[in-house]
Amino acid sequence: MGQLGAVPDLTALPTPAFVLVEPQLGENIGKTARAMLNFAQTDLRLVAPRDGWPNPDAGPAASGADTVLDAAQVFSTTDAAIEDCALCFATTVRPRDMIKDVVTPKEAARLILDAEGRGEKTAILFGRERSGLENEDIARADKILTVPVNPAFGSLNLAQAVILVAYELHETSGANRLDTAMPPRASKAELTGFYDHLLASLVARGFFRSPDRREVQARMLRNLIQDQNLTSQHVQTWRGILKSLMRDRQT
Amino acid sequence: MGQLGAVPDLTALPTPAFVLVEPQLGENIGKTARAMLNFAQTDLRLVAPRDGWPNPDAGPAASGADTVLDAAQVFSTTDAAIEDCALCFATTVRPRDMIKDVVTPKEAARLILDAEGRGEKTAILFGRERSGLENEDIARADKILTVPVNPAFGSLNLAQAVILVAYELHETSGANRLDTAMPPRASKAELTGFYDHLLASLVARGFFRSPDRREVQARMLRNLIQDQNLTSQHVQTWRGILKSLMRDRQT
Repeated sequence: MGQLGAVPDLTALPTPAFVLVEPQLGENIGKTARAMLNFAQTDLRLVAPRDGWPNPDAGPAASGADTVLDAAQVFSTTDAAIEDCALCFATTVRPRDMIKDVVTPKEAARLILDAEGRGEKTAILFGRERSGLENEDIARADKILTVPVNPAFGSLNLAQAVILVAYELHETSGANRLDTAMPPRASKAELTGFYDHLLASLVARGFFRSPDRREVQARMLRNLIQDQNLTSQHVQTWRGILKSLMRDRQT
Repeated sequence: MGQLGAVPDLTALPTPAFVLVEPQLGENIGKTARAMLNFAQTDLRLVAPRDGWPNPDAGPAASGADTVLDAAQVFSTTDAAIEDCALCFATTVRPRDMIKDVVTPKEAARLILDAEGRGEKTAILFGRERSGLENEDIARADKILTVPVNPAFGSLNLAQAVILVAYELHETSGANRLDTAMPPRASKAELTGFYDHLLASLVARGFFRSPDRREVQARMLRNLIQDQNLTSQHVQTWRGILKSLMRDRQT
């Protein structure tokens, strides 16, 4: 899917720390790096990765996002990983006994954008693949980030949770502007030229059999041409078709 | 990350066909099924999967989303797969020579919601893992769906592209409502009780040394208590702490 790329504007992209707490598989760290870099996030922090660091399984799974892996910082505790941060999110659902605000990825992205505007560094904690974040980690967060998923099938893998958060950061910052400029619409003169050409051709072929209905049919044709959002190129193509249809008649 | 689940409202969720055109690896078909079901999407269609169907590698990668795989329909051509659809998106970037509207996942989700409101079935085409959609496939689509990614690293894998689209369908439909009800805020009476308790304790400890500043300091304390968004439970906890601090003094 390499050709999915577009040319967004990356100014104003918030850059929180993506903190993986005790990640288990190197492959998942690699996939996380890739998902981050897809949306231009690069601050990856690892808290006590189970199999140490660096991990030979991470690189191949990163599919080229090695810059993120190479710059990853390793910490022995969650506290150490978020020391420089003022606003921290725990990606989980709220434990019953905790009183914390619960936000969606979109709301988190807005809060992160605002916080960074005040010069605050922010962090997002992601839990172990198998068991998620422990209450000790969650207690260190200011807010809980919950992805609203299908209640009947809520199992999001680590890299998928990461990509949804990274995507919303990108969306919220306005970095989602695509270059969607369409080729220009045909001018009214081009449309009229096409209409006249079509009308003359149809007249020549005896399309208008009933003089009573001619006006209505002509208006129908004009609407047909008007309502198609034709570009200059479309009009040229249509007129070529029309010319060819008229020329090739073998009667 | 199983505990990321929440309880969204799934009414009004649009349900386009997710059409994988000539997918190569069974593992990626499985991951696609999982990503779809995360956001309650279930209409999976496969066009000429390279290794046939069913594929033994799909199930393990679906992590429980077997219902989606079991219900997947297989077609020999893209045309056959989208026969019942009125609005079709090609997930790619616009080829230079094509004149088609380009939309983001968010815009596509809105268009799909609208189309389904008119009773139209919709489809989203996803290309081969390695090479994406061919121009022949794209020509069958009404619009192009492009994910705005990091221009320096645009490689989104298949299941990640799928999850971002499924997520936006879920968001746009309003299915993203989380049960974010916070425990109720403390009443003003509780806050005043806490304030009085704190003030009395501080007076007892000789906090207010300068009569001139007492009023200002007291107001500062009131603001401190007021501005913390305290819940009843917070207030109880604080008052317990205060009580304990007062009791344990050993002087």
